[in-house]
Amino acid sequence: MAKKPGRSTGKHATKSTGETAGKNAGKAAKKSAPPREPGDRWETPAADVLRWVRGTDLSTLDQAGTPGWAGDRADGEKLMATRGEELADLQERLFAHGRTGGDRSVLLVLQGLDTSGKGGIVRHVVGMVDPQGVMHRGFGVPTPEEQQHDYLWRIRNALPRPGYLGVFDRSHHEQVLVVRVDRLEPVRVWRKHFAELNAFETEVAAAGSAIVKVTLVVSPDEQKTRLAKRLDRPDKHWKYNPSDIDVRLKRPEYLAAYQEMLDRTSTKDAPWYVVPADRKWYARLAVTELLTDALRSLDLGWPPADFDVAAEKARLAET
Amino acid sequence: MAKKPGRSTGKHATKSTGETAGKNAGKAAKKSAPPREPGDRWETPAADVLRWVRGTDLSTLDQAGTPGWAGDRADGEKLMATRGEELADLQERLFAHGRTGGDRSVLLVLQGLDTSGKGGIVRHVVGMVDPQGVMHRGFGVPTPEEQQHDYLWRIRNALPRPGYLGVFDRSHHEQVLVVRVDRLEPVRVWRKHFAELNAFETEVAAAGSAIVKVTLVVSPDEQKTRLAKRLDRPDKHWKYNPSDIDVRLKRPEYLAAYQEMLDRTSTKDAPWYVVPADRKWYARLAVTELLTDALRSLDLGWPPADFDVAAEKARLAET
Repeated sequence: MAKKPGRSTGKHATKSTGETAGKNAGKAAKKSAPPREPGDRWETPAADVLRWVRGTDLSTLDQAGTPGWAGDRADGEKLMATRGEELADLQERLFAHGRTGGDRSVLLVLQGLDTSGKGGIVRHVVGMVDPQGVMHRGFGVPTPEEQQHDYLWRIRNALPRPGYLGVFDRSHHEQVLVVRVDRLEPVRVWRKHFAELNAFETEVAAAGSAIVKVTLVVSPDEQKTRLAKRLDRPDKHWKYNPSDIDVRLKRPEYLAAYQEMLDRTSTKDAPWYVVPADRKWYARLAVTELLTDALRSLDLGWPPADFDVAAEKARLAET
Repeated sequence: MAKKPGRSTGKHATKSTGETAGKNAGKAAKKSAPPREPGDRWETPAADVLRWVRGTDLSTLDQAGTPGWAGDRADGEKLMATRGEELADLQERLFAHGRTGGDRSVLLVLQGLDTSGKGGIVRHVVGMVDPQGVMHRGFGVPTPEEQQHDYLWRIRNALPRPGYLGVFDRSHHEQVLVVRVDRLEPVRVWRKHFAELNAFETEVAAAGSAIVKVTLVVSPDEQKTRLAKRLDRPDKHWKYNPSDIDVRLKRPEYLAAYQEMLDRTSTKDAPWYVVPADRKWYARLAVTELLTDALRSLDLGWPPADFDVAAEKARLAET
């Protein structure tokens, strides 16, 4: 699909719509490192340091780590604020693009064990952009209607329309996670899903979606602390389910399932990013960065007027 | 539907889940005026001063007015911040309610002429709550698929599920607005819609939705200013359509259509609120207030645990 010229990055982007930076402006800007925002302490870009490398041993991940980030929490919160403005600006360009016939969209896929903070990402990261342009969908146990269809049916129905930021809280990847761990399908069936998931995502990407897949990984200790909080606070009880402990006890099986999912479904079209999630501020900052990158990569300018601006000004003046 | 006890209003609501305030807690709290937030300068509650009174002459509305509000813009912005916290808290209770089998939801319907600020309400008011719990839908010219169905079909498909805050940017009411003004249906056909709209909303309310309908009214001068801004700024061109001027020239016809819509479809189940929209800060504050009221009126506490908390704490401790 054709890229539109005229995008510029950074917080002043809103008004600088005039200059055309060429076809690979996004890429070039990324390579040449745009001016840093206050608080920006990324030593290695989040997309580089968090992108899954096939064969990495997931069990060795430091879940309390802050890979690529040289600052502290305060720096992170400072950067979140300015990135939030850029993210909102980029999302509005995407929305404008969709409103004017463009076919691009962004799909953020969130996976992670209970308490890994998927909901917090939605609230604190996705919450920084205009809700008008967000299509959020949580996937739980399939409903009776959903069960009557292929497992990708409900996923297809929830894909973001052009111009939208789609957010999946859990996703089609559960077909090689809970389905595998709980033996809901025979091995020979679920093993076929890896190839199906990749084919599906290739199709989604070809239709115009930039796909960002994030697995949040929380440590057993931090998970225990978060589950205990849900049990301690009556306003958190609704988030707790006794099955959370059953799942917690299956951590080794889940880690094995995640390991193979990452190794087999991280592709060029739909890479996985693995985000340590013990420090919520880091996980939110990292996903903000990944999402901002994805939106920047669309390289969208403001859609040009498809009417005669001067003539319209004259018409308006007469009213 | 059964109301759950234990709701409390105000910014400290998050943690005060123990006390049961009785069946009419919401009503009682409203009557006895809860402690005021900093910046709260409402002299008359927004819901009282803005609720449409049948027969009021819409053409006499002061579109630059701030009815019920004795403060200035700075006061308004201060109150928005604290109300935002309450709104987010109430919305989370609604979401929790939906997750635990409850059937309540809230539907915010936004109507208004071009540039009246519907989008800004979504961004700045709805944007204060968790996007996970929001179902937003904009209604434009019906698509070919939509045209093959009854006009309520697409509306029904977009109704908020239990626990959600639904937001309609334009709505089923266009059937007595643009359809009337542009003569898309004969008079004898569109006149039947008033009764249909009311019957539909009665049904939606009976299913558990609290409906808040808002008509934003912008003055001709302010509309001109805002259209001119869209023409002046390349980053706003996508929001402009030459037909906006055609619609602008039909203002008298639209006002007549709005007048009758308000008179005939403002009901107990689904009242209309008419909000002067020349001052964006006021319109946003007013809708925040109306939405907060609607959520308070649901009187939702945190859902009680449906498991043995002590037993689960013991189970968790052993893991």
